[in-house]
Amino acid sequence: MSLEQADAVAIAAAVREGKVSAVEVTKAALQRIAARDNELNCFTTITADTASRDAERIDREIAQGKNPGCLAGVPFAVKNLFDIAGLTTLAGAKINAENPPATQDATAIARLKQAGAVLVGALNMDEYAYGFVTENFHYGTTHNPHDLKRIAGGSSGGSAAAIAANLVPLTLGSDTNGSIRVPGALCGVYGLKPTYGRLSRAGVALFSNSLDHIGPFARSVRDITTAFDVLQGEDERDPVCTKRLQSQMLDAMSRQSIENLRIAIAGDYFEKGASPEALEAVQNIADALGVTQYVTIPEAHRARAAAFVITACEGANLHLEKLRLRPQDFDPATRDRFLAGALIPSSWYIQAQRFRRWYRDKVREIFQKVDVILAPTTPISAPFIGQETMILDGEEILVRPHLGLFTQPLSFIGLPVLSVPIVRPNALPLGIQLIAAPYNEALILRVASVLEAKGVLCV
Amino acid sequence: MSLEQADAVAIAAAVREGKVSAVEVTKAALQRIAARDNELNCFTTITADTASRDAERIDREIAQGKNPGCLAGVPFAVKNLFDIAGLTTLAGAKINAENPPATQDATAIARLKQAGAVLVGALNMDEYAYGFVTENFHYGTTHNPHDLKRIAGGSSGGSAAAIAANLVPLTLGSDTNGSIRVPGALCGVYGLKPTYGRLSRAGVALFSNSLDHIGPFARSVRDITTAFDVLQGEDERDPVCTKRLQSQMLDAMSRQSIENLRIAIAGDYFEKGASPEALEAVQNIADALGVTQYVTIPEAHRARAAAFVITACEGANLHLEKLRLRPQDFDPATRDRFLAGALIPSSWYIQAQRFRRWYRDKVREIFQKVDVILAPTTPISAPFIGQETMILDGEEILVRPHLGLFTQPLSFIGLPVLSVPIVRPNALPLGIQLIAAPYNEALILRVASVLEAKGVLCV
Repeated sequence: MSLEQADAVAIAAAVREGKVSAVEVTKAALQRIAARDNELNCFTTITADTASRDAERIDREIAQGKNPGCLAGVPFAVKNLFDIAGLTTLAGAKINAENPPATQDATAIARLKQAGAVLVGALNMDEYAYGFVTENFHYGTTHNPHDLKRIAGGSSGGSAAAIAANLVPLTLGSDTNGSIRVPGALCGVYGLKPTYGRLSRAGVALFSNSLDHIGPFARSVRDITTAFDVLQGEDERDPVCTKRLQSQMLDAMSRQSIENLRIAIAGDYFEKGASPEALEAVQNIADALGVTQYVTIPEAHRARAAAFVITACEGANLHLEKLRLRPQDFDPATRDRFLAGALIPSSWYIQAQRFRRWYRDKVREIFQKVDVILAPTTPISAPFIGQETMILDGEEILVRPHLGLFTQPLSFIGLPVLSVPIVRPNALPLGIQLIAAPYNEALILRVASVLEAKGVLCV
Repeated sequence: MSLEQADAVAIAAAVREGKVSAVEVTKAALQRIAARDNELNCFTTITADTASRDAERIDREIAQGKNPGCLAGVPFAVKNLFDIAGLTTLAGAKINAENPPATQDATAIARLKQAGAVLVGALNMDEYAYGFVTENFHYGTTHNPHDLKRIAGGSSGGSAAAIAANLVPLTLGSDTNGSIRVPGALCGVYGLKPTYGRLSRAGVALFSNSLDHIGPFARSVRDITTAFDVLQGEDERDPVCTKRLQSQMLDAMSRQSIENLRIAIAGDYFEKGASPEALEAVQNIADALGVTQYVTIPEAHRARAAAFVITACEGANLHLEKLRLRPQDFDPATRDRFLAGALIPSSWYIQAQRFRRWYRDKVREIFQKVDVILAPTTPISAPFIGQETMILDGEEILVRPHLGLFTQPLSFIGLPVLSVPIVRPNALPLGIQLIAAPYNEALILRVASVLEAKGVLCV
């Protein structure tokens, strides 16, 4: 087995069976990071010492006949807005570097560690998660492993690129308007944004309270499924986090059947702004699944506008004091949007939240008739670093705000979405969103595993 | 039995037993209204025709041996923000008089009618429920039956005064910041603001979505209890309304025991702004219950400030279009507050909602140690109509915004509160709030029925 190519489940199996030690796996990951991260800039912190100690402990447990968990010896890393005990949580901000170290791991980190995974570091992101590009003013730009001149996407750019470059098989990111799915698509890896409230955000720096989600990146559907299953469940540290549900994820997957599933393509809004190659990618996936039906998600453009308003208002409120006292210490790209957000009247915010309830109910009606919806993740493949505009539908528009064109109307109402990778020969990767009703992660994982088995997706 | 003095439960019993007909009861109520409402101005609409028909139907049902319900033949009336099928819902606004008639009764009205109650009309209020005085610019001032030169309180002023004047034994009102409790106290009647979300608001004109509650006014604890029990329960027309709970209200009441109940007086904030007579009233109730313990509700002044912000923002958003197009058609007293609300930045609103979660958790901790808390309802008894200022704690302050001093910090987090009447010889009435943790209406009703039995309260 090539450790570099293996997915998390394969690594854990090999570690548990004694075919390779957790120490060896960890060392290999740290060596890959050391060799390649200079040019990629995925990592902002490498936790080599604690990683080595954790790996040694896992090997000892195995030697003692204990079961170290379903992710035994799997190296993982997290977007630097997750608290890591003993380290300062940056959330991509220079200002945060002055904060004291976190006293406790974020719940999500603690759960992955409990399942035997080994934390090797923290990953680059847009400042305060406000962006789709990971061109961070303070900590540099993360490069796309498929073409170093191009962006990895954001705001969880480091998390997606670290998977695409095979530095680690598992990472965590966060998604407010598309920050897991956009970099997942541009880097050609799997990225899951679960149902709002399903995974604990305890110990995660917030950006926009009513929109923030966390989720995993990986190279296989079974890795996404395993990580999701480890991460989910009630958490008294997070009042928003809902109860653990009997997910039966792995069961559902093993069936690898999509019989009786009603799948449709998102039409109208989700076709108009997409490049021809993005539409072709959706068509290919639809063909592979034998899907011909279309559905219309009504008022998706308004949903996006409302998501913008809520993000700007909630984000600005969270950083208001710092925006007042030291605006010069923000990333200029986020500062100006935060300042604009601080000036939005309350009526816009309330109107956006009111529309949200209407829209949620409308989309709920659609899920009476279909189980899974297909849509492009991003309108185009990865733009160049520094590229300011792109052509969509014959119009020249800004890159930064528009990469979330197709992701924002879905996270806005907390729907679970998996971005699956479409990696094409001699072309940059793209992503397709598999979308379901709240708490129906199992359905989209089933569709993804069928697509993966058909060989339509590859990382 | 004097029909005028009887409470709803007594009337319903008499009607069911054939001692009096529903038609007679209804006719008597309509006569009292005709005789006295000119000077009181409680009613904005009288539904004599439909009331008579409904009463006749109930009498027919009784003649046929059917059970017409626990409120058989009880005349009731509603604040004019409840939809009455066939009538235009005014919500105290001149602008609304142009609207088409409602096609369906509000859920609360439908439920009372289903229990045999007979709707006799709609009641005066502050415009859009934004006020504590019921000095309505368009529809006139409601007078306090205890002294016609004084206000009835608001915004459900008509609902409270109609009970105090014995026009009807049961009315409905709404409470956003104190609009049931304040007029209940100033008019010397019972007014219940239940837990947020417990009673359906379907068919009720909103004022401030995250703060609005509906609830009953009556002359006895058993009437409040019976009405509450009829009104509660899930309603598919109201997504906010929570499931029906096994209330066992009547059971709880019949015990008339407060053994094992931990009761305390709200100290600090709830003492400082109160007049000596309000404090004395609380002390008398505490003495009657043998209560000596005090609790501090932390940051109550901030809770009130946050409630003001949320009310102004949500209210302004609801009426924004009309505020833009025809501000001249608003009541000047509400218009200027709405306009101010429309200019509040989103960050204030979000901050208020954030504080709200913190405060809710803090108050929840208090209810680990006590079951029921006592506090004055209003700082003073009813001011004169047109009176602009009052003296509190040696300071001259405005009447209109300050009557909710003690009610706002409680409705802000949706706690159930019953204002019980303290009617004193040769003095204006006052009210005491009995406050419990969410969904513990039964506890406050138990305390109220003990106080009622002791003769400490009287209407």
